[in-house]
Amino acid sequence: MEILFTFVPKEDQQQRLKTEFPKIEFYFLYKDKTRLASADVIVTYGEDLTAEDIAAAKNVQWIMVASAGIEKLPHQAIKNRDITVSNVKGIHKIPMAESVLAHLLSLERSLPSIYQNQRNQDWNRRVGSVELKDSTALILGPGAIGSEIGRLLQAFGVKTIGCNRSGTQAPHMDEMISFEAILEKLSQADYVISILPSTTETKYLLKEEHFKAMKKTAIFMNFGRGDLVADAVLLNALQKEEIASAVLDVFEQEPLPEDHLYWTMDNVVVSPHISSKSSKYVERTLDIFIPNLKKWLVNRTVPTNLVDMEKGY
Amino acid sequence: MEILFTFVPKEDQQQRLKTEFPKIEFYFLYKDKTRLASADVIVTYGEDLTAEDIAAAKNVQWIMVASAGIEKLPHQAIKNRDITVSNVKGIHKIPMAESVLAHLLSLERSLPSIYQNQRNQDWNRRVGSVELKDSTALILGPGAIGSEIGRLLQAFGVKTIGCNRSGTQAPHMDEMISFEAILEKLSQADYVISILPSTTETKYLLKEEHFKAMKKTAIFMNFGRGDLVADAVLLNALQKEEIASAVLDVFEQEPLPEDHLYWTMDNVVVSPHISSKSSKYVERTLDIFIPNLKKWLVNRTVPTNLVDMEKGY
Repeated sequence: MEILFTFVPKEDQQQRLKTEFPKIEFYFLYKDKTRLASADVIVTYGEDLTAEDIAAAKNVQWIMVASAGIEKLPHQAIKNRDITVSNVKGIHKIPMAESVLAHLLSLERSLPSIYQNQRNQDWNRRVGSVELKDSTALILGPGAIGSEIGRLLQAFGVKTIGCNRSGTQAPHMDEMISFEAILEKLSQADYVISILPSTTETKYLLKEEHFKAMKKTAIFMNFGRGDLVADAVLLNALQKEEIASAVLDVFEQEPLPEDHLYWTMDNVVVSPHISSKSSKYVERTLDIFIPNLKKWLVNRTVPTNLVDMEKGY
Repeated sequence: MEILFTFVPKEDQQQRLKTEFPKIEFYFLYKDKTRLASADVIVTYGEDLTAEDIAAAKNVQWIMVASAGIEKLPHQAIKNRDITVSNVKGIHKIPMAESVLAHLLSLERSLPSIYQNQRNQDWNRRVGSVELKDSTALILGPGAIGSEIGRLLQAFGVKTIGCNRSGTQAPHMDEMISFEAILEKLSQADYVISILPSTTETKYLLKEEHFKAMKKTAIFMNFGRGDLVADAVLLNALQKEEIASAVLDVFEQEPLPEDHLYWTMDNVVVSPHISSKSSKYVERTLDIFIPNLKKWLVNRTVPTNLVDMEKGY
């Protein structure tokens, strides 16, 4: 049996796999598709496989995506072959929640000004720091990651309003609403934080009217997928100062084009889709992959983190 | 009765005082000492009164300091006259704890690099983000502020070790040690966070040996008072990379001298003593001052936030 990783884990992580599965041939090949044809299992970050690759990988029965989003996979090709797909949902929650809190606290406690004043060697005490405490956050997509963000926000004394398709209760949310109720709730939110995946229902969910309904002091944070809002809509809201600022980890087009206005806007933070980065990332990927592979060897099933290619998550 | 504020609260805050105490004459005078001689009570940030001022303020019986530290007051002159001194201990805990978490999360989640890369319009995903989770923090001075920092760190899954004079238990600390045990504990700490006041016991408490004992990856955060460690000692530790970085909100000399090395060091964050800044600061000062003034008018006592000028806090 052959397993192809399209990225290269650290030496000790490779060794961990080889020790656990001495009979399996592992290949760790970045941007090198020479082993596609013989791979039985492919482990990928999910953005390097085309429909042609799937055709070439004629033996593959399971694709493990070391990412939460699977929208860049060639869906039709995978469905036609009935290939099992699994992801690493859950491992992003700690680093992503920490990143969201980092960005939020940084803006509210004036860190960009503090850093800027230091570069200017300017002992400048006139900063407009405010507090998270007693504010309100609207969390779009209170799943594993969103609930962890909610838990941390609540520790800071922030009221959390969760928002999902149906409005069914999610952990660490003081209140829940459905997608239909977003518009009327926005005026209460100091922070609007999205961790929504890209699905037919979330694509361009936020429109001009939503940004008009937000507080002028609101911070919009998109840590889900870039197609939640059209660039033109968000740019317009930021330029007209309908909201105070945006922190964006995801974009309609990634990498963000070199000439994009976001790069130079004072009220935009551009984070190049790295909020889930962590020194523990690959380790945790293996923590999910290894038990699943053991199960796979027994009966060709993947017990955890299965992806429904129809639903898209 | 005359009350002199040596700073100028907002109009609505001044009105709040006048409405509560219609018979009292309030003066709100920044850098203007013309009403010193007739003031019965002085409300100050604590850094603008000299021994001569105390002599001139011959009626003053109570000085309310809108700050936690009182080390810049002319102690001897105040003790000689037996003037009551109170502070606003407690109101710093929310903004300061949020600032400490902001700085810590910012460094660990690579925000300085993210901001820098944005300025360079560089879609650079190679950042070494790590997590707070499962790290260990040593908190020097787990009083009101330190315990609040501990509470938030625990929410992030950080182990908290509190350190005070006697080692007696403080809230939100997984473990407690006394000052004597600092040195042996430092090797366990990923973060060393001080919110210690300046007293005879804390002055230059941290010496060369302490920084040598810290992890090379440690972040040292001083949010207490600048004389906890001599500049030369900290500079040396940072230059020799005995620790990874320092976040300093307080300094031996404030303002930090223009030619000081800290300004331009990559592994130092200079925050100009603003971590307790908050849009709610003066409001909360009045929340403490008003009930105390009511009591004062009855029997010349200040029920809360009394300062012991001998102990220094």
